[in-house]
Amino acid sequence: MALTDTLETSHGTVVDTLKTARIYEHAASIINYDQETICPPKGMEEQGEVQAYLANQAFRLTKDEKFVAAAEDLYAHRDELDPLDKILAVNLHRSYMKTKNISADRNLEFSRIMNQSFVDWLNAKKKADFSIFRDSLSKVREVNLEDVSLREYDEGTGPKPSTAYDALLSDYEFGVTEKDLDAAFGAYLERMTPLLKEIRTRGKKIRTDFLSIEVTDEQQKKMADYLLDLIGFDKERGAFTTTEHPFTDNIGRNDARVTTHYYPKAFLSSMFSIIHEGGHALFMQLQPEADYDHFIDNMQTMGQHESVSRFYENRIGRSEAFIHQIYPKCCEIFPQVFEGVSEKEFYEAVNVAEPSLIRTEADEFTYTFHIIIRYELEKQIVNGGLAVDDRLPGLWNDMYEKYLGVRPANDREGILQDVHWASGFGYFPTYALGNMYNAMYYNRMKQDLDIDRIISEGCFDVLNGWMKDHVFAKGNRLAPKDWIRDITGRDFTPDDFLDYLEEKYTKLYEL
Amino acid sequence: MALTDTLETSHGTVVDTLKTARIYEHAASIINYDQETICPPKGMEEQGEVQAYLANQAFRLTKDEKFVAAAEDLYAHRDELDPLDKILAVNLHRSYMKTKNISADRNLEFSRIMNQSFVDWLNAKKKADFSIFRDSLSKVREVNLEDVSLREYDEGTGPKPSTAYDALLSDYEFGVTEKDLDAAFGAYLERMTPLLKEIRTRGKKIRTDFLSIEVTDEQQKKMADYLLDLIGFDKERGAFTTTEHPFTDNIGRNDARVTTHYYPKAFLSSMFSIIHEGGHALFMQLQPEADYDHFIDNMQTMGQHESVSRFYENRIGRSEAFIHQIYPKCCEIFPQVFEGVSEKEFYEAVNVAEPSLIRTEADEFTYTFHIIIRYELEKQIVNGGLAVDDRLPGLWNDMYEKYLGVRPANDREGILQDVHWASGFGYFPTYALGNMYNAMYYNRMKQDLDIDRIISEGCFDVLNGWMKDHVFAKGNRLAPKDWIRDITGRDFTPDDFLDYLEEKYTKLYEL
Repeated sequence: MALTDTLETSHGTVVDTLKTARIYEHAASIINYDQETICPPKGMEEQGEVQAYLANQAFRLTKDEKFVAAAEDLYAHRDELDPLDKILAVNLHRSYMKTKNISADRNLEFSRIMNQSFVDWLNAKKKADFSIFRDSLSKVREVNLEDVSLREYDEGTGPKPSTAYDALLSDYEFGVTEKDLDAAFGAYLERMTPLLKEIRTRGKKIRTDFLSIEVTDEQQKKMADYLLDLIGFDKERGAFTTTEHPFTDNIGRNDARVTTHYYPKAFLSSMFSIIHEGGHALFMQLQPEADYDHFIDNMQTMGQHESVSRFYENRIGRSEAFIHQIYPKCCEIFPQVFEGVSEKEFYEAVNVAEPSLIRTEADEFTYTFHIIIRYELEKQIVNGGLAVDDRLPGLWNDMYEKYLGVRPANDREGILQDVHWASGFGYFPTYALGNMYNAMYYNRMKQDLDIDRIISEGCFDVLNGWMKDHVFAKGNRLAPKDWIRDITGRDFTPDDFLDYLEEKYTKLYEL
Repeated sequence: MALTDTLETSHGTVVDTLKTARIYEHAASIINYDQETICPPKGMEEQGEVQAYLANQAFRLTKDEKFVAAAEDLYAHRDELDPLDKILAVNLHRSYMKTKNISADRNLEFSRIMNQSFVDWLNAKKKADFSIFRDSLSKVREVNLEDVSLREYDEGTGPKPSTAYDALLSDYEFGVTEKDLDAAFGAYLERMTPLLKEIRTRGKKIRTDFLSIEVTDEQQKKMADYLLDLIGFDKERGAFTTTEHPFTDNIGRNDARVTTHYYPKAFLSSMFSIIHEGGHALFMQLQPEADYDHFIDNMQTMGQHESVSRFYENRIGRSEAFIHQIYPKCCEIFPQVFEGVSEKEFYEAVNVAEPSLIRTEADEFTYTFHIIIRYELEKQIVNGGLAVDDRLPGLWNDMYEKYLGVRPANDREGILQDVHWASGFGYFPTYALGNMYNAMYYNRMKQDLDIDRIISEGCFDVLNGWMKDHVFAKGNRLAPKDWIRDITGRDFTPDDFLDYLEEKYTKLYEL
């Protein structure tokens, strides 16, 4: 489509600025990655300053008058643009409306409050004492509320969210609301609470003794390399290292990084975190090249991303077919573990459902309970029904007792276990949405592919090809609800996920 | 000392700019470190662009008119400044005179040529074919000559160097000239050539069979950790990782990073590279805090740095006393190697003198021959006595035959072995100067300390304390010749080093 000269100029200005912003963001990502993996303890503070400076430079660029005018010009003429440029123009307009009343200095101030909050959280967790984190958390809430109150809305951004929590949620899962979550989580609780009780009272006993046999780091590294190769992670376009808390970073077009952590007496931990993080990386590596060229890469929401990582980790990784595929290799790499352990016993062990205190160690079945608990609290904190004070840890513990039948002994294994609140509210529920999304597209995939056969034969090129065409193709281009409708032809529902859990766990526990 | 208001303003401008430049340099360093250690192959290009952009931003800041005016104001009033600010003012003036005629764009162009040259060198080395690198090398020479021709000189910079090579050399070893090197290397050749012949014809046979026994990475990692702790490397203010070609990076005030590489059948390689790189890191970690505050940290020359790294690697690391200290730990960590190997045999084996083709694998005795060969060639290339053409590899090989009695079979193990020429000329001889400097301060240290006793008892705090007070204290503040005079009270001479080699190797080989 030929653009007018003025529009061409605007487009040029936008692209030039975004190219430079991308350089700063790339540098900030590398520094963040470095801090998570290598940076020495006493070097963190200086490096934190460098990271904040670079991230703020990127923010400043998007506040530049010429850039804003050019971006708004594109937005005004969005229907004359190439479809991907139109998406970019809408994205830029949304960001503009969101941040137009926030100066670069104020933005830097927000970052500093979040940084301090992170330090306080670390300290509080170390000492298992919520009161050390309390005031910071309260400031984070204020920053979040101030941020939200400064936003503007119009036709392009969609209507003003009806609650502050909805506004925050839209940062991570555009178009999804409290109402959606309440409905989905309500359905989950209704169907899974009785099933959990069944499992605990009548479920068959599953053997797990071999899961804590000691293995070496070298064995675990070998396994991790094998799994990454198996699922199709491209090592020429990605890196793999170790860290304390595993994550995946999309550093650049050809640089998606997976990390893991080796526990000598819990080899499953690294195995499934590798498949999980590898899933994130596949989403990054297999997104359309054109999205990168049009500056709409990395637009996938958190829920979309978690849907993919959990698809690989749980739907694929904990399936009978996958265990069948990897069992021989497991016996070869970990002989001390698999002596006398059958394939069936291994499959059952990776699927044990057991209420526990720590989300990151939770199994596929009980995981969502953890999310719901924090969601219930943070929704009230943000919207004003609950104060940030010393009663919070007790409320937290009560909910664990109510939903999971376990009670944290201290704040470290209770309310302080996860870092997320240190950088704001609204992120957490996206973890649970992921499971619900992928259950829907798994059912769609079944119409096209004999999934179990493909997995048990290790044909990940076929599986990834389908994911690329159906799931990854529009991850940057559509908001989650539209995206899931595009993939499956159906509106979002938690039912596919709940049906799956019910079927799998009823069978597994012989109920 | 109270400054006038204008001078105070100038000082403020300079400090603000340098703070920002330091942020860019920090980020560029991290990215460079990442490329050397983790960045995936296909991510290198994008990351190279990011690195070049950030480095150029730092350069641009120092070209800013306001900054230049402020820096020149400080320089004009340097005698009114605090002594460390005076050093900074002189440094800035020298940089200014050196780069005032080079625009930021031209500077970026230079970086691009060097980057391309690096790629061509890699490719040429892979294919063992100098002709692939030839034209790039020729361009590097042109860039170096253009750079040098644009420099200006005055009282503050010192006189214009008499040759282009001297100008390049001054970038790495300020104040040292071809004349100094010719004299030092001439003395080396005169005394060491006959000694090498003696060793080869009449020297006793030294046992080395156990050096190639296979060990695991885990054993080597344990040894590396032990050695870094032993010599006093501060892990809270530094990191330790692996890479293809070991190096040390000074990332920030509290972040000095050491790398190593593990070869399964050459455990000595990592051990001594760890001590070498650890030495560099100690120089960084123990430099005066005030130097950092005054932006004169990282001003140590290459020769000064190599003197320290080789001091720890060779003067300390290959001494009888050090071997006595580490021998029990070596037996414990590498039992398969040290079964039936005595402490004396180990000492002798780490000191074998054997002419070889590859500099980085050369022993303490023959190392300097490698440096002299490249120095002789590059001096002529830069000053115009030798063309960059396909005759160079042959000349290289002839010199190896003449000085060391060995002849490379191809360009990979000949002229292409080292990367340095890909980024310019004048750096290489600093490697050899290091040995000569440290021999001088070792002799000075002997007057104060019972060095052998201190080392054999592992009291590195005492040793490092002396180094900090005498060697590290003025590393950023004095040019090498002044620095060595300040430490030892004597003018630079190669004699201490040559005496040391003669004594050590005559005894070792029982000549």
